[in-house]
Amino acid sequence: MSNGEVTQVIDGDDVLEPLKGTPKNYTLHKTSDLSLKSRAKKQFREKVPIVNWIGGYNNEFAINDFISGITLGLTIIPESIACALLAGLPPFYGLCSVFIGSFIYLVFGTINTVIVGPTSLVALVTIRFTIGKPIEFNFILTFLAGVVELIMGMLQLGFIFEFISMPVIKAFSTATAFLVIESQVKVLLGIKYLVPGFVESIRTLTYKIDEARLGDFCMGAFAIAFLLGFQYLGTIRVSGINKNSKFWNSFLRYLSLCRNTLVVAITSTFAAVWAYCLSEGESLPFRLSRNSVHGLPNFTFPSFYIETEDRSYNFFDILSELNFGIIVIPIIGLMTNISIGKLDPKGLVQSNQELLTLGLCNIVGSGVQSMPVSGAFSRAAISSASGIKTPMANLYSGIIVILALSFLSPYFNFIPESTLAAILVCALFSLIDFKIPIRLWRESKRDFITWVICFLSCVFYGVEVGLFVGITVTVAHLLYLWARPEIEVKIEQIGEMQYISLTPENGIYFPAINYLREKVLKACTHAEFQLPVVIHCHKMNGLDFTAAQGFSKLCGDICSNGQIQLLILYQMNSNFQKFVDIEHNLIFCESEEKLREILLQEQLKNGYIALKDHIRASIDLGYKIDMERLERHD
Amino acid sequence: MSNGEVTQVIDGDDVLEPLKGTPKNYTLHKTSDLSLKSRAKKQFREKVPIVNWIGGYNNEFAINDFISGITLGLTIIPESIACALLAGLPPFYGLCSVFIGSFIYLVFGTINTVIVGPTSLVALVTIRFTIGKPIEFNFILTFLAGVVELIMGMLQLGFIFEFISMPVIKAFSTATAFLVIESQVKVLLGIKYLVPGFVESIRTLTYKIDEARLGDFCMGAFAIAFLLGFQYLGTIRVSGINKNSKFWNSFLRYLSLCRNTLVVAITSTFAAVWAYCLSEGESLPFRLSRNSVHGLPNFTFPSFYIETEDRSYNFFDILSELNFGIIVIPIIGLMTNISIGKLDPKGLVQSNQELLTLGLCNIVGSGVQSMPVSGAFSRAAISSASGIKTPMANLYSGIIVILALSFLSPYFNFIPESTLAAILVCALFSLIDFKIPIRLWRESKRDFITWVICFLSCVFYGVEVGLFVGITVTVAHLLYLWARPEIEVKIEQIGEMQYISLTPENGIYFPAINYLREKVLKACTHAEFQLPVVIHCHKMNGLDFTAAQGFSKLCGDICSNGQIQLLILYQMNSNFQKFVDIEHNLIFCESEEKLREILLQEQLKNGYIALKDHIRASIDLGYKIDMERLERHD
Repeated sequence: MSNGEVTQVIDGDDVLEPLKGTPKNYTLHKTSDLSLKSRAKKQFREKVPIVNWIGGYNNEFAINDFISGITLGLTIIPESIACALLAGLPPFYGLCSVFIGSFIYLVFGTINTVIVGPTSLVALVTIRFTIGKPIEFNFILTFLAGVVELIMGMLQLGFIFEFISMPVIKAFSTATAFLVIESQVKVLLGIKYLVPGFVESIRTLTYKIDEARLGDFCMGAFAIAFLLGFQYLGTIRVSGINKNSKFWNSFLRYLSLCRNTLVVAITSTFAAVWAYCLSEGESLPFRLSRNSVHGLPNFTFPSFYIETEDRSYNFFDILSELNFGIIVIPIIGLMTNISIGKLDPKGLVQSNQELLTLGLCNIVGSGVQSMPVSGAFSRAAISSASGIKTPMANLYSGIIVILALSFLSPYFNFIPESTLAAILVCALFSLIDFKIPIRLWRESKRDFITWVICFLSCVFYGVEVGLFVGITVTVAHLLYLWARPEIEVKIEQIGEMQYISLTPENGIYFPAINYLREKVLKACTHAEFQLPVVIHCHKMNGLDFTAAQGFSKLCGDICSNGQIQLLILYQMNSNFQKFVDIEHNLIFCESEEKLREILLQEQLKNGYIALKDHIRASIDLGYKIDMERLERHD
Repeated sequence: MSNGEVTQVIDGDDVLEPLKGTPKNYTLHKTSDLSLKSRAKKQFREKVPIVNWIGGYNNEFAINDFISGITLGLTIIPESIACALLAGLPPFYGLCSVFIGSFIYLVFGTINTVIVGPTSLVALVTIRFTIGKPIEFNFILTFLAGVVELIMGMLQLGFIFEFISMPVIKAFSTATAFLVIESQVKVLLGIKYLVPGFVESIRTLTYKIDEARLGDFCMGAFAIAFLLGFQYLGTIRVSGINKNSKFWNSFLRYLSLCRNTLVVAITSTFAAVWAYCLSEGESLPFRLSRNSVHGLPNFTFPSFYIETEDRSYNFFDILSELNFGIIVIPIIGLMTNISIGKLDPKGLVQSNQELLTLGLCNIVGSGVQSMPVSGAFSRAAISSASGIKTPMANLYSGIIVILALSFLSPYFNFIPESTLAAILVCALFSLIDFKIPIRLWRESKRDFITWVICFLSCVFYGVEVGLFVGITVTVAHLLYLWARPEIEVKIEQIGEMQYISLTPENGIYFPAINYLREKVLKACTHAEFQLPVVIHCHKMNGLDFTAAQGFSKLCGDICSNGQIQLLILYQMNSNFQKFVDIEHNLIFCESEEKLREILLQEQLKNGYIALKDHIRASIDLGYKIDMERLERHD
């Protein structure tokens, strides 16, 4: 702003404290001036976020969180059982994965709407690394994923998640939802198999389609219809004619939120009654989730030596079998939490703190035979809808799960598998988003291509491969921008003096310098006369050593015919000037006045003087010439 | 340039053809207008560069190239034998690696100073992938490296070599020279062992130091002294007193260039004579390079099924054993050629053409049992010094090597190994460059750190790891620049109207958007009054979909307290504007006039009117106020 008056600069660690009164009076404090004590306090507040909100915790918050917590607890029970089945584990371990994480997240978590537990997304990736292996691999994976998260958090590596762009996240979540739904089709049809990969799964499904069972299908269809119906219930608004309309609205909404629990309660009661009525030798026409272990799990960290009938695994065998899993699981887990955090309007996600928290959840969780945990989109939707206020809801949902494990375990045996599949399918259907690619196609072809590549690799090569491919594609584009910056090349003139003008629109770093040199040499070849080369550096906001060396080398490049051609670096930042080695034909130039002078001198030296200048020179020497007649000829 | 008049734009595929006459008349042709025939011709000229220079080939060129070719041929013989030994191969295969490549490079090569053949650098990396394996692995590696190069060339992937910055190249070449010299110390001392890795090699050397042999040491010391002496000879200038001074200068220079051949001739003659004088049972006090095979190699492509006494390897076994080698060897080979090409002042390296050429050299070369080949710095130095003009020199050096293989093979048995080691040591000593890190330390700490990291990883973890680490570090920095662009944050004011001003110095892509949001929200928190936020976009030369969505989201972020706060995107490129979703508090603004108006309206609406404006408003309403007295209080 040309006439803008700068009042204050807010940047870095400066803390700008406005005083009450006129808006003009501000005082600036450096955080370095703050006392050691207040720094430690700040640090503590960052690392243990519960202290930030527990002081101001009031009745309103408590009521909201209590309702949300109970709702979520009831939702998470069938959901975590379904995730356990998806990961190829007995249902018991799904429930084990919930409560410890909840308590830890309550203290260290930063995102209100996150309820930690197993997710279908993580389960889908987990099974790719643990399929066909002993069950202990799951708990070790949880432990190692936790360790990786903790290390990443300590090294402040949270920023790497900023390199996952929106099209990649959207393609990834749509693909995951698509894959989970595909994987549940077989459960809804009552067919049993366990194969990795989309193509293989479809092939097996078509091959085994005649094994489909009517009982499972009916149960699944009922559950889906029930869930969709109750979801619709939540959108109904009883109008104001009825006196109790407010109560009814709340009641319907709550009924809608509890639909997962309701469908489980109804179908499992139905199954239990039917099973009670069966005579010996008969069996139910639909599958139930079997759950051999009862009660709370023991706390015992996984052993890093596994012995099976076939072979034994030591620590390094386990590591090499889990392979990239211990990197991919943390990335996916944190990516989910960050994505949920970004849905919160005011929320700035503290990714490092989330890494530390998830790390703790997983490490401690592995002691109670937990699967890898994180937040889940489906739960976040319920959190928001049920008016959650703080992470305190984690406490209530954790308690609900503990109670369920302690007292309800035997009854879990009666939950039909197709009900659980229906819950997963309905929860993930909302994640499938084909509006985004259509919009991207219209507005940004490059982002659209990223979406397509990422989606297809997720579906055909697995979600972890797809995520990697998506990130690679977007990062490659960022690098390409440094390799091929926009450079405007023109032949310009000041007065009668021509010169080749290059304007890089961005900083010049090492991948771009050869491109710049090529542009200059091409322009020099095209302009037959040896015109001076002027590089406008006012938009060049970065330069490294390699690129600076390239400028010096360019001086030699343009002189090689024996003739001296000037290279003028116009308005280059003085910090960058010192990188550039001085050459005899290199000139730094700050002002337009000086540029004009240099160009004139150069023109005189090379004898390229336009007629007018000749004449003016002649006038200076005392000759008399009819300027008007000349102008007419011009 | 404000008053600069744009005459022409040279960009993209435009061909600017200046007409003879005044420098003002240019005509523009689009290459798309060129006929198909001339396009095909251009393509052919690009792919077969020999046609560009063979027409104008004259006597002067021929003489220069002949002298250079002979010199290089004589140099390359001992050098390639030394490289073969370095790669753990019999000397014969070193010579096999030279001639085919030379003939191919003659036709397809683009860099005059490159003489294709084995290099110590590639040999050093080769042995890391072939150590302890059957000899055929070397030829298969050559073949596969060629295939990779050919594919990279066809996919136009040459640009990726621009991502190797100068500090990385310098650290890599210094480290390689250092490692090769270290590896030759044992040969100079007459100690035999073959272990991979610097640390392991040093450990073995100290362990075996008492096996050192005086004979080898003396021979090596003599050879080094001879080479250094003759190198010095080349710098002597006989002054004009003598009539024949020009002849003597040329003679000395030529003698200096042929020093490698001379030292081999002298020491092997010495060895041959000594061996002839030996009585039975006695042996020479220094090792000779043994060379069991005579004559020219047969042309036969390597088989992809290898059987040894212990085990057999099929194609996939071989692939998994060679591992990253088939990627690393092409990268190192091409990197060398590009680095040599860059030494040529006028040279613009055509990396894709070089990839294709090296690919051909290696694929065909593998048929004559060649090691992977590329240009070499040591040969490039000799090429330049001996006044090479075109790649024709490759023809002569190739013929020399064929003649040597045909007729001199038996005599190669008498070359002492320590002479060859001395040649390598002297050739590589000039590559060790510790001036660069010192300069980097002074001028650019970041580049210095890159150098140190790359150098240390090369030395301690192998050159291929070092190269990878170096590239990763530099590329990570480029990505970091996109994640944390410079954003200037100020509280500015126009007249009495204050606003929060943010100026991103660069394009905003997905990794930066959260950083920008954080900056805005921090500034909003610090400025207690709800000031409008103005983002100056004139330096923002890029925006993607994710970042644009972030701007829309930012509108929600700053409004969350229920109060409406304006977000003004000032001077945003209209191409980017369409990405940004319209929000109720988002305003695009082009001119300062309009910005002033918006700010005034906003101030009036929010009631933050400074006293003066109140008074002016009062005057407008008809009140009479003593303005002068007020001014004094102001």
